[in-house]
Amino acid sequence: MRQFGEVAGIKVGTEFASRAELAASGIHRPTQAGISGSGTEGADSIVVSGGYENDEDYGDYLIYGGQAGYDPNTKQQNEDAVLGRGNLALVVSYNKGLPVRVTRGLGSRQHTYRYDGLYLVERWWVDRGKSGFRIYCFALRKIDDKPISTPAGELPLPTSNQEPDRVKSYTTRIVRDTLASEAVKEAHQHVCQTCSTRIERPGGAYAQAAHIRPLGRPHNGPDTAENILCLCPNCHVLFDGWAFAIEDDGSLIGALSGKLNEIENHEVNRQYLDYHRRLYFDANS
Amino acid sequence: MRQFGEVAGIKVGTEFASRAELAASGIHRPTQAGISGSGTEGADSIVVSGGYENDEDYGDYLIYGGQAGYDPNTKQQNEDAVLGRGNLALVVSYNKGLPVRVTRGLGSRQHTYRYDGLYLVERWWVDRGKSGFRIYCFALRKIDDKPISTPAGELPLPTSNQEPDRVKSYTTRIVRDTLASEAVKEAHQHVCQTCSTRIERPGGAYAQAAHIRPLGRPHNGPDTAENILCLCPNCHVLFDGWAFAIEDDGSLIGALSGKLNEIENHEVNRQYLDYHRRLYFDANS
Repeated sequence: MRQFGEVAGIKVGTEFASRAELAASGIHRPTQAGISGSGTEGADSIVVSGGYENDEDYGDYLIYGGQAGYDPNTKQQNEDAVLGRGNLALVVSYNKGLPVRVTRGLGSRQHTYRYDGLYLVERWWVDRGKSGFRIYCFALRKIDDKPISTPAGELPLPTSNQEPDRVKSYTTRIVRDTLASEAVKEAHQHVCQTCSTRIERPGGAYAQAAHIRPLGRPHNGPDTAENILCLCPNCHVLFDGWAFAIEDDGSLIGALSGKLNEIENHEVNRQYLDYHRRLYFDANS
Repeated sequence: MRQFGEVAGIKVGTEFASRAELAASGIHRPTQAGISGSGTEGADSIVVSGGYENDEDYGDYLIYGGQAGYDPNTKQQNEDAVLGRGNLALVVSYNKGLPVRVTRGLGSRQHTYRYDGLYLVERWWVDRGKSGFRIYCFALRKIDDKPISTPAGELPLPTSNQEPDRVKSYTTRIVRDTLASEAVKEAHQHVCQTCSTRIERPGGAYAQAAHIRPLGRPHNGPDTAENILCLCPNCHVLFDGWAFAIEDDGSLIGALSGKLNEIENHEVNRQYLDYHRRLYFDANS
């Protein structure tokens, strides 16, 4: 299984002497491709090598020019990009909200790479690159707090290893979402369990994982499939905001009517429906 | 107008000798109430005074017991809480996603207060408090990165004033959302401009503000009402993910059909619809 998020033992700021060494660390497994990923799972990692004409690097915010044909000598793009493997993988990461590891090539020291942390794809679009060819662009924003400051080539090493709890738990939460939540969403093929909406966008379908008994203090619901529903964003907002609840027989009460869509290979634990339902009644009484 | 977000000139960690001084600073204007806010605008600020039996303080994460009747001597709750002014204001902040300033009373130094930064209401619910009375609970999570560590009374001053760009821009973005975006959502009474859905939850309606020409590099769309649509979360996901676009005459193309709902006091600039539409066609070609 493709590993998303942090790699155990590899801190932000770690440098690597070569692509082979970078691959061996598990940060970015392909030794040539800039994008590590697949069109079904998404992209887990990219390498940003300084000097590509369609990249814009602002440190914590990055516009990445995607996979395309480039002349290896001039680094100029020489053909239209397509929504193929690498680019599609990044679109899927956007659709799924998956974290992407970013490694930068340090321009001033050839063949030296530095792992710069986790980013989220905030948006993607198609543009004409500097050389006039079609290019897939990805805006990525850093989601951990380990600071970096300037574009590749002038990058100092991070001076601080502060890791405030908030950011750590945020990162953990995002990565955790890739396990039980993705499984539930896949099992339902991204069809909302309460209104049957299926949101389809270029690159795939979109749904959200809603925890029935909430995670975190004081509710401490588990992050397991039996405590997760596959919902569309609208129903997720209603569910978390106490606008509806679900009876043990699957009937929807409150703002929604009808029944919970259930499937054989995803059992919803009634004890969590009951927990949420009691909170729903209290919030509405 | 109620001011949400940071107050100019007041840094996280600033201490105040009294509630009067705290009020004069603009951080928390009421001199008695723990919650500053209204049921229409939301809550802009709370004061967490150590020792209340229904509060749980983990520093970056806080469970706040809301407004209720307390015996001033024992600090024990002596009546059921209601969804009145202060509690309703915090529910509205949750519904609108507004930042809440948090000030802590420093237990070990009576009548000393410290401003601890911006938090978001992640969730609210109703519970029975320690004394058996109904209580509104609010889980708040810190959204700026200025570190604090332990519950009130043992809190050291922040040791660092690092302000990475990412976090600053995140905070700025949240606060900015309260201006043009809130105006557009109010004008449409939270009815989605593309599918007419109106999401209603306890405490009020919910909608999202979608920028037509995207904010930020390289698109640099403006944060003004003429570049904003009031959308439900589902349509927002479709709009940002290039699943549909809008013709100049308001016709919806792609995954949605029908027409853009428009009203007299909110004019949508066609130049931005055109910008988004070109990106939509490029993403789907």
